[in-house]
Amino acid sequence: MKKVVEKNYVVVLIDSNLKKIIVDTAGKTDKIKGVGVFDPKSLVGREYGKQLEIGNKKFWLLRPSLLDKLQSLKRRAQIILPRDLGHILINCSIESGQTVLEAGIGSGSLTIALANAVAPDGRVISYDIREDFIEHSMKNIKKAWLAHYVSTKLKDVTKGIDENDLDVIILDIPNPWKAVNHAWNALKVGGYFCSFSPLTTQVESTVKELEKYSFIEVKTFENIQREMVVSNHGMRPSFDMLGHTGYLTFARKILPP
Amino acid sequence: MKKVVEKNYVVVLIDSNLKKIIVDTAGKTDKIKGVGVFDPKSLVGREYGKQLEIGNKKFWLLRPSLLDKLQSLKRRAQIILPRDLGHILINCSIESGQTVLEAGIGSGSLTIALANAVAPDGRVISYDIREDFIEHSMKNIKKAWLAHYVSTKLKDVTKGIDENDLDVIILDIPNPWKAVNHAWNALKVGGYFCSFSPLTTQVESTVKELEKYSFIEVKTFENIQREMVVSNHGMRPSFDMLGHTGYLTFARKILPP
Amino acid sequence: MKKVVEKNYVVVLIDSNLKKIIVDTAGKTDKIKGVGVFDPKSLVGREYGKQLEIGNKKFWLLRPSLLDKLQSLKRRAQIILPRDLGHILINCSIESGQTVLEAGIGSGSLTIALANAVAPDGRVISYDIREDFIEHSMKNIKKAWLAHYVSTKLKDVTKGIDENDLDVIILDIPNPWKAVNHAWNALKVGGYFCSFSPLTTQVESTVKELEKYSFIEVKTFENIQREMVVSNHGMRPSFDMLGHTGYLTFARKILPP
Amino acid sequence: MKKVVEKNYVVVLIDSNLKKIIVDTAGKTDKIKGVGVFDPKSLVGREYGKQLEIGNKKFWLLRPSLLDKLQSLKRRAQIILPRDLGHILINCSIESGQTVLEAGIGSGSLTIALANAVAPDGRVISYDIREDFIEHSMKNIKKAWLAHYVSTKLKDVTKGIDENDLDVIILDIPNPWKAVNHAWNALKVGGYFCSFSPLTTQVESTVKELEKYSFIEVKTFENIQREMVVSNHGMRPSFDMLGHTGYLTFARKILPP
Repeated sequence: MKKVVEKNYVVVLIDSNLKKIIVDTAGKTDKIKGVGVFDPKSLVGREYGKQLEIGNKKFWLLRPSLLDKLQSLKRRAQIILPRDLGHILINCSIESGQTVLEAGIGSGSLTIALANAVAPDGRVISYDIREDFIEHSMKNIKKAWLAHYVSTKLKDVTKGIDENDLDVIILDIPNPWKAVNHAWNALKVGGYFCSFSPLTTQVESTVKELEKYSFIEVKTFENIQREMVVSNHGMRPSFDMLGHTGYLTFARKILPP
Repeated sequence: MKKVVEKNYVVVLIDSNLKKIIVDTAGKTDKIKGVGVFDPKSLVGREYGKQLEIGNKKFWLLRPSLLDKLQSLKRRAQIILPRDLGHILINCSIESGQTVLEAGIGSGSLTIALANAVAPDGRVISYDIREDFIEHSMKNIKKAWLAHYVSTKLKDVTKGIDENDLDVIILDIPNPWKAVNHAWNALKVGGYFCSFSPLTTQVESTVKELEKYSFIEVKTFENIQREMVVSNHGMRPSFDMLGHTGYLTFARKILPP
Repeated sequence: MKKVVEKNYVVVLIDSNLKKIIVDTAGKTDKIKGVGVFDPKSLVGREYGKQLEIGNKKFWLLRPSLLDKLQSLKRRAQIILPRDLGHILINCSIESGQTVLEAGIGSGSLTIALANAVAPDGRVISYDIREDFIEHSMKNIKKAWLAHYVSTKLKDVTKGIDENDLDVIILDIPNPWKAVNHAWNALKVGGYFCSFSPLTTQVESTVKELEKYSFIEVKTFENIQREMVVSNHGMRPSFDMLGHTGYLTFARKILPP
Repeated sequence: MKKVVEKNYVVVLIDSNLKKIIVDTAGKTDKIKGVGVFDPKSLVGREYGKQLEIGNKKFWLLRPSLLDKLQSLKRRAQIILPRDLGHILINCSIESGQTVLEAGIGSGSLTIALANAVAPDGRVISYDIREDFIEHSMKNIKKAWLAHYVSTKLKDVTKGIDENDLDVIILDIPNPWKAVNHAWNALKVGGYFCSFSPLTTQVESTVKELEKYSFIEVKTFENIQREMVVSNHGMRPSFDMLGHTGYLTFARKILPP
């Protein structure tokens, strides 16, 4: 693996507060928020892992990891956080080569995690009812160099799903219960359904709808993540904590008796 | 995708309590725990997604997903649960094509999740100091059809790591702090360190050791997973809950100034 | 304070598993579950704080504290646990001298905590629709030597409340929203309403009803209690954990504008 | 109970953000933070439970409850929050008439809860090593009309405890393990020890010290409180959450064998 930055490549700059900026080294001199006016080509040849100074600020220079891509994306809609992405990946058994459908695309955070997980041979199909969200997300996804694995569709998933034999369907929409019947039809046998909902009432409606179709392993989780602070004085849970993100409901398609 | 079970293939049988048994359809007639004496070849030609009767018990028949592989493995040592596996995958930015080292192998649960995530072009190297654990795990990993991606080594990771330029190193050992210096040396620049420890005292020692080396993004999390129960009466968190699994500490290698 | 057990008094026996038995030293020789045939008068004169042998078992001998009274009561209905009792006491600002109404009485666990808190000059009024629950609870309350502070009423609180100017009203019934109007009428200005409900749907209905009346400080909490285990190896949260007890909703009566 | 404010009494003003100000109606015209220049005597004769206007702001007028007293106190040191006070009250079996010792006094939040709980016949003794903390707390305690139940002592509790036969001892100091031996000596048989500590390392040292003395029922808890938000859309846990307050360790004195 090359130790220095190449031409026409993508890198991440990480400042001392762990703010992350993804930069395309083929880009033109431009004003970059948090960096100032800056020529990305000047990074070519610099050593990975070293701290460098741009303007009056110090940045670590690294190849972007999945987490860098997620943590640097520009938010428009509320995003699904890494803590929930991890649960989605494992509880939907997502792996390289699969075809996964998500709706809606939001800011592209879930899309990026999915594209990364199904690469190099799989594919993500992303529905959204708002063209501006699709456009905004695709900018984030291109910056993450994952656009190759993603196709988008301006469509309301509660009105129908065009694809079939899907490995996984993930819904991050206000009314997931309205897409449950379409999801059952579009999934392959053994495929996973997932919905992400902040409200208890959304979970109730979705679970009740799932029970009308041939699904097994219907489960709802909430995931509470606590950071631990270690200092010279000792260790304790962080006082800062996000109290809630959303409930994750999972189910798996089987055939009716 | 084939709708019926093929010869020389692997399937999962799921009973009504969601107990899962992975079966190789090339296997011989044998007594299988929870099923009885049974000829795996009799499954060939049966339709996926249907419930079938073996002995007096009903089983769903499916292609095994990652979760099936994890939930059917035979435990010897304590395993890392799916909830923590998801966090490891996302916080270490694990993806297809990477080379990941883990120590120790335990019962192979983490190994299976890692092999599944780095496939088809990546590789998992697994250290353990106990030959019986390696043997037991490899049985589980073979059953999951993932042995191709895994190589094992009878070695104490606190005594040194032979490989270098690793993408990720994950430690599930009682004294992870003793392997921190070896981990720093063996990781690529930008690579991720992770340790899983049940005790607060282990976290403290590990974080203090990490601070002696060039690591950034040092963070410790604990993940509390709650299941929600939905019934006709309403919804509530489950009374049954696992109160703790372990703390996850993450760090990322950079170069010294 | 006397150092030895007196006649006509009440003591607690605590075995090595922290099982607690309250014994009236004026009682007759009887078979006591967990102790065997035993004459309570034989305890008179024994020193508090010492471990003594009855049958083949060892017991600590102490004056019963509130916690002893709560932990030794015989359960019939589900009880409110000490963790939630603490929150009720503080969030309803319960104190000596107040008049508090509760419904239903259940097994008397909340009644005991309330009686203890309002003593020596206050009073607890307890409604229940089942005479057998009232009888069973009063046995527990008498054993705790708190019957003096408690009066019971065989009445459905959703049908009306006879008292007025109450300091606090606490509902542990399946449909607390149906008693909200009666509660508003029966409370003094500034008095506290509290309901304990396991289900999210119960909370929603209750909060929506509370919003129709002049209440301020309407809040719902759930309290998650984790035990920490300290051993020679280090410290960690306990693996055993009760995942849920119930949601506590609080509100405070004011006058309409 | 009087429906209107009396002379020489104490009331609470609650604004629409639930900020609370305790006012002595015998006080002189003064500038009150959050209210402006204001004559407390002007409140005499006003009806409790009504909203009134002072300056351009609206306030609910009520008799102060325990919670009002706790939520209006002026903080200097970090305070123990109501969620933990509730657990302390119940797990130490605190009741009217007891003698309770606390150290240190901090801003008087625990002192107020204890004084309220042991009234009308009990007593709180409060140690602190800083005279300014004692003075500041006593102002808060006087405002809460509970000074009658509290005596303070400028003394380091790790150097010794003058009192004996205490019902309860509660430590909120950085090194509670250093007072464990004094606590054992000063407690009555069956009396409760409690320490509040933010750090895991403090808990470990305290529990190890407790094990050297005759204590039973040694337990450590952490209490996680989540607020639930109910709106027209549905219900969910609040996004805002305090991730940690401290660990509570409890123990109970018995006699050595």
